[in-house]
Amino acid sequence: MPDSVHDDYIKDGPAIYRESFAIIQAEADLTRFPEHVVPAVVRMIHACGMTDLAADVGFSPGVATAARSALDAGAPILCDSQMVAHGITRARLPADNPVVCTLRDERVPALAERIGNTRSAAAMELWRDQLDGAVVAIGNAPTALFRLLEMLEAGAPRPAAVLGIPVGFVGAIESKEALAARAPEIEYLTVFGRRGGSAMAAAAVNALATDRW
Amino acid sequence: MPDSVHDDYIKDGPAIYRESFAIIQAEADLTRFPEHVVPAVVRMIHACGMTDLAADVGFSPGVATAARSALDAGAPILCDSQMVAHGITRARLPADNPVVCTLRDERVPALAERIGNTRSAAAMELWRDQLDGAVVAIGNAPTALFRLLEMLEAGAPRPAAVLGIPVGFVGAIESKEALAARAPEIEYLTVFGRRGGSAMAAAAVNALATDRW
Repeated sequence: MPDSVHDDYIKDGPAIYRESFAIIQAEADLTRFPEHVVPAVVRMIHACGMTDLAADVGFSPGVATAARSALDAGAPILCDSQMVAHGITRARLPADNPVVCTLRDERVPALAERIGNTRSAAAMELWRDQLDGAVVAIGNAPTALFRLLEMLEAGAPRPAAVLGIPVGFVGAIESKEALAARAPEIEYLTVFGRRGGSAMAAAAVNALATDRW
Repeated sequence: MPDSVHDDYIKDGPAIYRESFAIIQAEADLTRFPEHVVPAVVRMIHACGMTDLAADVGFSPGVATAARSALDAGAPILCDSQMVAHGITRARLPADNPVVCTLRDERVPALAERIGNTRSAAAMELWRDQLDGAVVAIGNAPTALFRLLEMLEAGAPRPAAVLGIPVGFVGAIESKEALAARAPEIEYLTVFGRRGGSAMAAAAVNALATDRW
């Protein structure tokens, strides 16, 4: 090895978090967010490294309170991908809440064929019995968010909050605008545009689950 | 619900991928990348929704070939977080490769205390027996990448390739520059700057694991 790795980096986990959150609060414009929404925005920025993300965050004013109340009451967290599910810090959940991802359920491939949609969308069908009052975290597939909105429109039980943050180039923008258009009937948090992803969705859940940053 | 959700979105998974990759190829400047590195760049862009990411990608020219050869030979994939591990598509791996994340090993908290570093860094110590010829995928913690570089400098077995893509505000920039400074001794792929994350690291593995996009 040519040079020595500098040994002066911060090695204390809590100090790293404090310094990170201080940088985010100094750089990001958080003034338009209600007090209870701020931690979710900060943690989503922390998950992606981009302080300008704040400008693209969309929300209904009651989303944080609705999500937190639901989690306190034991609501399940319904995730569209394994990455979202595995990004949720179980120790932060207030009621040992179930974290559910139905994507790999053995019924999904046949369901996808039957409804003519992706497996991510078909997996939503298996949420139906748990949707009422749940916290939904979509961080991957725009088709999952579209399908959920179709199900709600057709009378499926209403979740307490939808954290709808799919990412990408096909349908992401449109699905998130469709979600926001459903307010105030649905409490929601989103990131408009192409950006999003599993890490942001999990970060939002982790922020809304507790008063601790 | 006020309006109907538009039902004209693309619901065919393979068509969504094709359209996404076509948009990325049209918008991103991929001209400076070797042929075998291009799929990794495209899939990292796909994972974050930002075509300008290409400008920040750093690599050693042999990284794709080194990673692919190692995977073909059955090398393990060592991941710094559960999110990275769960973002890797097992069906794309050429040799049923082990996907390893030691972060939740019961020895990690005591190790972290002993070395005075984060649990992410301490988890690297438990990679030691599997490092030789492995593919490393770091998508979360700068301290993990710093610690790995320290271990390599101190004579730890050399991995075949390091996909070092931690994210954030404290140490991310510096750890990735330290990685790049170790070329050509280490084959590497990174994203310079604050951006990075588990989804990008997993996407890079998925791209390098197969000739299929």
